[in-house]
Amino acid sequence: MFTIADKVFGSRLLTGTGKFNSAGQMEAALLASGSELVTVALKRVDLKGQDDDILSHLRHSHISLLPNTSGVRNAKEAVFAAQLAREALETNWLKLEIHPDPKYLMPDPIETLKATEELAKLGFIVLPYIHADPVLCKRLEDAGTAAVMPLGSAIGSNKGLKTIDFLEMIISQSNVPVIIDAGIGAPSDAAKAMEIGADAVLVNTAIAVSGDPARMAEAFKIAVIAGRMAFEAKLGSISSLAAASSPLTSFLDD
Amino acid sequence: MFTIADKVFGSRLLTGTGKFNSAGQMEAALLASGSELVTVALKRVDLKGQDDDILSHLRHSHISLLPNTSGVRNAKEAVFAAQLAREALETNWLKLEIHPDPKYLMPDPIETLKATEELAKLGFIVLPYIHADPVLCKRLEDAGTAAVMPLGSAIGSNKGLKTIDFLEMIISQSNVPVIIDAGIGAPSDAAKAMEIGADAVLVNTAIAVSGDPARMAEAFKIAVIAGRMAFEAKLGSISSLAAASSPLTSFLDD
Amino acid sequence: MFTIADKVFGSRLLTGTGKFNSAGQMEAALLASGSELVTVALKRVDLKGQDDDILSHLRHSHISLLPNTSGVRNAKEAVFAAQLAREALETNWLKLEIHPDPKYLMPDPIETLKATEELAKLGFIVLPYIHADPVLCKRLEDAGTAAVMPLGSAIGSNKGLKTIDFLEMIISQSNVPVIIDAGIGAPSDAAKAMEIGADAVLVNTAIAVSGDPARMAEAFKIAVIAGRMAFEAKLGSISSLAAASSPLTSFLDD
Amino acid sequence: MFTIADKVFGSRLLTGTGKFNSAGQMEAALLASGSELVTVALKRVDLKGQDDDILSHLRHSHISLLPNTSGVRNAKEAVFAAQLAREALETNWLKLEIHPDPKYLMPDPIETLKATEELAKLGFIVLPYIHADPVLCKRLEDAGTAAVMPLGSAIGSNKGLKTIDFLEMIISQSNVPVIIDAGIGAPSDAAKAMEIGADAVLVNTAIAVSGDPARMAEAFKIAVIAGRMAFEAKLGSISSLAAASSPLTSFLDD
Repeated sequence: MFTIADKVFGSRLLTGTGKFNSAGQMEAALLASGSELVTVALKRVDLKGQDDDILSHLRHSHISLLPNTSGVRNAKEAVFAAQLAREALETNWLKLEIHPDPKYLMPDPIETLKATEELAKLGFIVLPYIHADPVLCKRLEDAGTAAVMPLGSAIGSNKGLKTIDFLEMIISQSNVPVIIDAGIGAPSDAAKAMEIGADAVLVNTAIAVSGDPARMAEAFKIAVIAGRMAFEAKLGSISSLAAASSPLTSFLDD
Repeated sequence: MFTIADKVFGSRLLTGTGKFNSAGQMEAALLASGSELVTVALKRVDLKGQDDDILSHLRHSHISLLPNTSGVRNAKEAVFAAQLAREALETNWLKLEIHPDPKYLMPDPIETLKATEELAKLGFIVLPYIHADPVLCKRLEDAGTAAVMPLGSAIGSNKGLKTIDFLEMIISQSNVPVIIDAGIGAPSDAAKAMEIGADAVLVNTAIAVSGDPARMAEAFKIAVIAGRMAFEAKLGSISSLAAASSPLTSFLDD
Repeated sequence: MFTIADKVFGSRLLTGTGKFNSAGQMEAALLASGSELVTVALKRVDLKGQDDDILSHLRHSHISLLPNTSGVRNAKEAVFAAQLAREALETNWLKLEIHPDPKYLMPDPIETLKATEELAKLGFIVLPYIHADPVLCKRLEDAGTAAVMPLGSAIGSNKGLKTIDFLEMIISQSNVPVIIDAGIGAPSDAAKAMEIGADAVLVNTAIAVSGDPARMAEAFKIAVIAGRMAFEAKLGSISSLAAASSPLTSFLDD
Repeated sequence: MFTIADKVFGSRLLTGTGKFNSAGQMEAALLASGSELVTVALKRVDLKGQDDDILSHLRHSHISLLPNTSGVRNAKEAVFAAQLAREALETNWLKLEIHPDPKYLMPDPIETLKATEELAKLGFIVLPYIHADPVLCKRLEDAGTAAVMPLGSAIGSNKGLKTIDFLEMIISQSNVPVIIDAGIGAPSDAAKAMEIGADAVLVNTAIAVSGDPARMAEAFKIAVIAGRMAFEAKLGSISSLAAASSPLTSFLDD
């Protein structure tokens, strides 16, 4: 169990709704994941209507929506989008994504901090997507962020935890939950993120583009549990020399 | 489920019995691991008596013993040890370990192949511990090995899958089960081994030296399941460029 | 040859002056490095006097000083320090370092951007030390930076290019020189930085703490040349499969 | 300077003759590399004639030929090929390559040891190409090998030093020169190999397939020198925490 703002979650696996072949496939995967917090791009939601197709597949009592601002280019657009989302989706939770760069989709630290400050003042529960920047994380805390969401590697790359050294710094210093976002490409990556002490992970592409999204979602679900369990049970240290687990006195000596 | 020789196993996690603080702690961890094949060093077994302390903790109907030859220095000693083990423990299964090097405990390819040939002829089910050497693996197949057990990194180092490129070669070519042995230091390593298609993993040090062996054993148990599930569900490819999981058309454009 | 602002440099190796055992050892290493741009911490310079010991060892016609602001905690302090430096050292070049974090010494993206904007307006040639953040690099360009100095890994860690994926993004997009700073621990790291297309590298700790700083400085000097040469000659691609460099038709077939 | 058998070499860069576009391009690259020991596949040499095209480009007083047995599949073929080579090329030096595997071209440890034993008895100076197997290296020493040539990664892959942990074991234990062979894809890889204490490296593909082989050969030449120099000057240790090279007392405190 872990807490963001004042909300307690049983699952440490957050999921996203992009890139699935169909809404039905998406729904099956989300249910298999056990995820209780699911991001949905504002752009994909019909903010005026009631019967949006995506939303209809997300109406499960254990699932809370986490609208994201993907597509906004600066703090001003982010704040506007957040307000529309709050009204339409009746939630003040927000995954803040500001990535003006069309090629690598890396987040903008300056606009993200600015938007976090404003949105926190406006009463939003802000979860900003950021580079694995330890100082930015501390500044986001000062600005009232509810959590930080540093990336493991580029969005959708499936490259895993390329930023691990910096994630470890962030985790060691953070007073808010650290949720590793972007780049997690396999259950082993998710387990590793949990082993180093992350509070949670967000996975989307690796589930959606796999050969069997529902089964892959289940694999991520249990890998996250395994990683957290290992963190709590404390891993042994890594050594450069070998050390036999079996006795090495010669078999025939005695 | 997977099969070694003609025996079917439900669990793909093999465990070892070394380095635990007590026999009770060991037993609890082995039970938590769900492991059905457990290595025990011949040196530690009282081959003459019936009431050996270690063995008494391994008497569970779902657990088969896999005696290992740790401590032997060449094929001749290995064959002799194997014969003693078969008589005392009433099993013809054998984990063949020949590592004459006292510092890094790396296995000897020449003596291991030689011993495998002889032991297979003598009716043993041989599971040799080896470097991640693709050609050696094929030669062991020709010699009648029941499986191959290439190392991930040095025994007891907890360094993980340093040999991954070679493990992938071995897996792609093998006609016998590939069980990754040595160096697996965390559940994420075990999950990764399964994701690349290993049939099973053997873990000992990482469980025994953790802060809570029984809990760590459970973490490995489910990480192995997660990794296998991901292998079967097929992971997406890794790309160098980012690819958004949320739509990127500008939020306010339309 | 490469250019920062309007100044042409023959050497792509920048060096620092910290951590040497003596000023004489430092001078010998700097001369062996061939470096033409050498950072010196403002804190270590006697800004009032003329006969500062460190400076006396840096008076060589081919060496330009690059004062750094190590120790400042925000943009305001940085601008004040820069103005003192300009007056005392008679240079408007400045390595901007703002790292409020005492443990990991990671740079502050927000204050660094703010200080860069102000200092560029005040006529400084600003070279900011930053995390390997592609979006921040573009914003620094807009703010008038003369170059960007993203880190390879934590200062003084000798861990090498842990941020390589992000450095490649930065290099592919930058309109100003990219100088890899911090973490370069060996000549092979410096060569690698040049191979991926960095314009230059800054090395200090790895030279100063080595067993023989002057010889290590020379090793870095030529490694940087080798890496640049390889970049210009274009490296072959990396492949997953083996490909023999010798013919593989069987020797005895014909 | 380093010594193999009783021969002293000034250059620690060995090169190969495969994959070049033309013999002229090859010759220019070999000269630029400064290499004094150059492998040539027996298959490519006209063993009967005097005016073989490749050989005519290798007739330089500072270059010794190192015939390789690429294409042989076992010890018997290797011995036969070696004897032909000795007669035709008037050298008893031999790079022993036995890789029966057509896909990954990994060397055969068993046949390589067997051939080394026989060839050493026949008076050959044997340099066997092997996996990075520490125990095999010691056995080859016992068999009379003149050097060991463990691989960094698969032949022609340009993947670099994937076996680095095992190379370090080999170097720490070896009584004969260790020459890292196969997989070195960039000057930074060659520098790294030298930094960990290898005696020499062999590079072929990375030079031959580059955009400018002669220039790339020169880059490798100086990278090898840089790496060796760094090894001799002793690199500083790698640490997990940052450590400033500039003083960190706050700039404005005093």
